[in-house]
Amino acid sequence: VTTDMLVAGTHFFPDAEAESLGWKTLAVNLSDLAAMGAQPRWVLLAGALPEADEVWLAAFAAGFFACARQFAVDLVGGDTTRGPLNLCVTAIGEVPPDQALKRSGALPGDDLWVSGVPGRAALGLAHRQGRLVLPEPLAGTCLEALNRPQPRVELGLALRGLASAAIDVSDGTLADLRHILEMSGVGAEVGTDSLPSPGVGAESSAVRDAQLAGGDDYELVFASAATHRQEILALGARLSLPLTRFGRVIAAPAGTLNLIDARGQPVTVGHLGYAHFQ
Amino acid sequence: VTTDMLVAGTHFFPDAEAESLGWKTLAVNLSDLAAMGAQPRWVLLAGALPEADEVWLAAFAAGFFACARQFAVDLVGGDTTRGPLNLCVTAIGEVPPDQALKRSGALPGDDLWVSGVPGRAALGLAHRQGRLVLPEPLAGTCLEALNRPQPRVELGLALRGLASAAIDVSDGTLADLRHILEMSGVGAEVGTDSLPSPGVGAESSAVRDAQLAGGDDYELVFASAATHRQEILALGARLSLPLTRFGRVIAAPAGTLNLIDARGQPVTVGHLGYAHFQ
Repeated sequence: VTTDMLVAGTHFFPDAEAESLGWKTLAVNLSDLAAMGAQPRWVLLAGALPEADEVWLAAFAAGFFACARQFAVDLVGGDTTRGPLNLCVTAIGEVPPDQALKRSGALPGDDLWVSGVPGRAALGLAHRQGRLVLPEPLAGTCLEALNRPQPRVELGLALRGLASAAIDVSDGTLADLRHILEMSGVGAEVGTDSLPSPGVGAESSAVRDAQLAGGDDYELVFASAATHRQEILALGARLSLPLTRFGRVIAAPAGTLNLIDARGQPVTVGHLGYAHFQ
Repeated sequence: VTTDMLVAGTHFFPDAEAESLGWKTLAVNLSDLAAMGAQPRWVLLAGALPEADEVWLAAFAAGFFACARQFAVDLVGGDTTRGPLNLCVTAIGEVPPDQALKRSGALPGDDLWVSGVPGRAALGLAHRQGRLVLPEPLAGTCLEALNRPQPRVELGLALRGLASAAIDVSDGTLADLRHILEMSGVGAEVGTDSLPSPGVGAESSAVRDAQLAGGDDYELVFASAATHRQEILALGARLSLPLTRFGRVIAAPAGTLNLIDARGQPVTVGHLGYAHFQ
């Protein structure tokens, strides 16, 4: 069971397109179930709305139910009330006893993997805000990642028995990886040049920041014993989803993060991801 | 499974005392489980807060966990984020197959019952807002009903097999009764003088409004076959909780509400309860 609250101004623009918002509101919760290796089954939606705007609601519902249909979940309850726009979904999934993926199982020597191309959502956001101008079709790809994230449900199910720990990337690749490290009592060595390129061309610091610290991607970061390496590459091919090995778990104080570049030199980054109250 | 969202300014005063708010945030959700005859088990709490105020959070948590302890529920998940104050609880309970109380089972001839003294919370609100001055100890009783409602969990469990339909009174006695009538495809005859008196003395129209249309009481309204009448009175005695018969279900178009006074004369009331978008 998982719950996520989305707030206008914090998680999305107050003028966000309603259909995309409906999709994303559900998708980010299914992403949490995916990170646990669970099969999504039922969801509840509670929403505070400033007013009962039927056009907005119809578009929101269209996006929400498109996502529900794609992942075969049923809306089984909810609540509506008046207030500043706030959307809270609770999602319920099923997983066999002792097969759930946790954040706490990573072991020294495990490989670290990430699905898809983290950073796209942050680049889409920068593009939307005019801080960066992306060429087409990259702009479209990045805005799609931002507005209509794909929860990695199939990947999560397939990682049962393969991953020793998993998490979805909502606050940034390194920030969410650190949750695994802290819960597992280990550290990690991360190759900053090993992450898949968003394809912007010149790898500027803005691109690196997006890859390492951009949130909102809803890719999965997971740890897995090196003996599973070929199986995981085959899984990526089967799902047509890039799975990239970008580091390894090390015996070190919980949460230790050593960043190195392609030549093995230490890398310093400005911030590690989104913190809700800083 | 049930979810309820509480919004500052709509469900509580922006300056509401944090400990009471913590209690109430959980209590109103347990009330929904009580109305289904479910044993509360697990809860999740998602909250948007304008800032991380540790004193406020400590008081809120004290109230929330006092309620959790009293009803033996475990907090198993949640989410925190920045935003206008909004609290969303999802509560999960257990009930044996086919024993859940629903809104849809009321039959013509059934008695209509209400627990406790509906209207107290609305009178407490009027007192707090200065629209009414209540004497002590009545003021204290009504403010307690408003700020620290008691979910009728034990009653709900005991009503399995006795009640044909049940609901908790969050929007007002008649408004919530009407949900039962509509879902059951029946009408009701309600004796407005049969409801338990909040003990204000002169039964002003303000008091009657509170009894019939005041929300936020979290008492249970339920229908039950007349053959169970003695059993229900005995149940009230066992729980030290007044259970009052205030009407009966009739064969009539779904949602029909005939209000009559002690002499059998029709009664007209101004509004039937709280509507979220009027």
